[in-house]
Amino acid sequence: MHKMPEQILLGHGSGGRLSQDLIKNIMLPAFQNQALAEMHDGARLTINGTKLAFTTDSYVVKPRFFPGGNIGKLAVCGTVNDLAVCGAQPLYLSAGFILEEGLSMAEFRQIVASMAEMAAAAGVEIVTGDTKVVEKGAVDGIYINTAGVGAMLPGVQIAANRVKPGQDIIVSGFLGDHAIAVMSERHGLTLPAQIVSDCAPLNKLIQKLLTEVPEIAMLRDPTRGGLATTLNEIAVDAGVGVMLDENLIPVRPEVQAVCALLGFDSLYLANEGKVIVFVEKELSEKVLTIMHQTETAGAACVVGTVTEKMSGQVVLKTKIGGLRLLDMLSGEQLPRIC
Amino acid sequence: MHKMPEQILLGHGSGGRLSQDLIKNIMLPAFQNQALAEMHDGARLTINGTKLAFTTDSYVVKPRFFPGGNIGKLAVCGTVNDLAVCGAQPLYLSAGFILEEGLSMAEFRQIVASMAEMAAAAGVEIVTGDTKVVEKGAVDGIYINTAGVGAMLPGVQIAANRVKPGQDIIVSGFLGDHAIAVMSERHGLTLPAQIVSDCAPLNKLIQKLLTEVPEIAMLRDPTRGGLATTLNEIAVDAGVGVMLDENLIPVRPEVQAVCALLGFDSLYLANEGKVIVFVEKELSEKVLTIMHQTETAGAACVVGTVTEKMSGQVVLKTKIGGLRLLDMLSGEQLPRIC
Repeated sequence: MHKMPEQILLGHGSGGRLSQDLIKNIMLPAFQNQALAEMHDGARLTINGTKLAFTTDSYVVKPRFFPGGNIGKLAVCGTVNDLAVCGAQPLYLSAGFILEEGLSMAEFRQIVASMAEMAAAAGVEIVTGDTKVVEKGAVDGIYINTAGVGAMLPGVQIAANRVKPGQDIIVSGFLGDHAIAVMSERHGLTLPAQIVSDCAPLNKLIQKLLTEVPEIAMLRDPTRGGLATTLNEIAVDAGVGVMLDENLIPVRPEVQAVCALLGFDSLYLANEGKVIVFVEKELSEKVLTIMHQTETAGAACVVGTVTEKMSGQVVLKTKIGGLRLLDMLSGEQLPRIC
Repeated sequence: MHKMPEQILLGHGSGGRLSQDLIKNIMLPAFQNQALAEMHDGARLTINGTKLAFTTDSYVVKPRFFPGGNIGKLAVCGTVNDLAVCGAQPLYLSAGFILEEGLSMAEFRQIVASMAEMAAAAGVEIVTGDTKVVEKGAVDGIYINTAGVGAMLPGVQIAANRVKPGQDIIVSGFLGDHAIAVMSERHGLTLPAQIVSDCAPLNKLIQKLLTEVPEIAMLRDPTRGGLATTLNEIAVDAGVGVMLDENLIPVRPEVQAVCALLGFDSLYLANEGKVIVFVEKELSEKVLTIMHQTETAGAACVVGTVTEKMSGQVVLKTKIGGLRLLDMLSGEQLPRIC
């Protein structure tokens, strides 16, 4: 294993290679336990016979308001989605606020209102919380942590080790909208068409999928690090290869244009309302039909397949027919995207 | 109700009057639900027949290392204690880190090691987490959020409405050590004797108390806002008065000396390893005997009683025999104490 740097780098929060380093070299050895070692989007626990999922995320998005949402909306949707992709019905959230002295009360109210609205949309309750205020300059306006508890859906078994060669990989819609929306707002870019974050709660869609297609092997939401990083994690955990077809990957032309202009790769951009599904080929149509009936997943499609070869790796068949190895995100493309 | 200020003030994070304003005027109306409205240290929930407690706190203590602990130790003990005073056995914690680019990896390791050590001491597992890194200046080194899930102890009914006139109020030990230890470190004070934070997990003590004295009516840990603020909250919630005897309140002479010098009031100082117990007079001795057998509560004593008169108020019988009304903390004595 390579040597850890002596200081925390922005990349340690990227969701990519350096984040993994931090988890594997510091967190796992210190906190060692089974639930953490599974390295899912949340822990799966059993308390007095009841099966639960438990997850947390802190949100530091900059700027805190962006096309399609704000930090409050993100804080509820992100944690709801992490519970959903564990195979759980999200039920209860906590909310921990760290506020900067001088933050406008009107903005704070608006952020809290968005949280309430998203909680209602997702059917969860925000039942406990905490507010700290720090002096001017000790936080950038507002950071929010949400943790969530959900009830595992009976009969569902979402696990990387159920990903097998031959399965299809489905993405629920256009990639990169969230990252580009936030980035454009941050830098005041004037784009030909406004790009809006995809931030949305996915739990109702996912619950419908898992009820009607309980055979689904694996789910994951491609947030920080994007599709490529998420698939790399799964390929390693499952001991399989992944073959993606660039022609099939849904990216809006306007997002592609911004990426081309600024040198971003849409496959590494964060999404906040998308899910990746691994399922046997013969069940793909069934999954897609369910997805296409919804607004959030109307553009869902198969983007690739699981292979036996190239275990632990993700390969992209490019538009011009070449093969490109997609590594995990190293460093950080866009800090503070969520 | 008075008008809310147009900006967030440091006092909104004090745990006192302004914190209550924020909760009552913004959070409760937005998130309205039963568990939140109970305003305990955590939410009490039932999922598929299993009774749980769920709580969260963010930790922003400054400086992050202080005599007797660091931000990591605090982040585990604080959330463990919040679950314990709900009447639950703490089981699982989440950890959400917000790190500043450039934070020393050695310091981060030390903080994580303290978390692991405290989790082991308390018998809980840190099962899920998240790490965000923000650019230099966007956070002061490291903030940590922990959320916790616990199993409610059977037969236990900790509730403000069980607090009744005639009951004794017990405090488990010396007040103010944590606040003065942090404050001294922050300002580089040279004190005649070093004061060490009382930060410690209380769950084993509390579980023993609740098992042997299930009649205990109410528990609360007097953190931000101190003993006076915590008792004010309970007095209002329970619709009773509280009469404290200054001669009985345990404060170390060296803490009292710093308070006298700097104008702090020990009754409003944060504690991180103390619990307040409300129990019928005839059971006080039993509670004290259990406490005195432990290291963390060796100095436990009765500090006052619940009264029928002065409902919703806390009155201190001073050393010279006068009566002083102790209001809830207004404003902020010591920001970033936890």
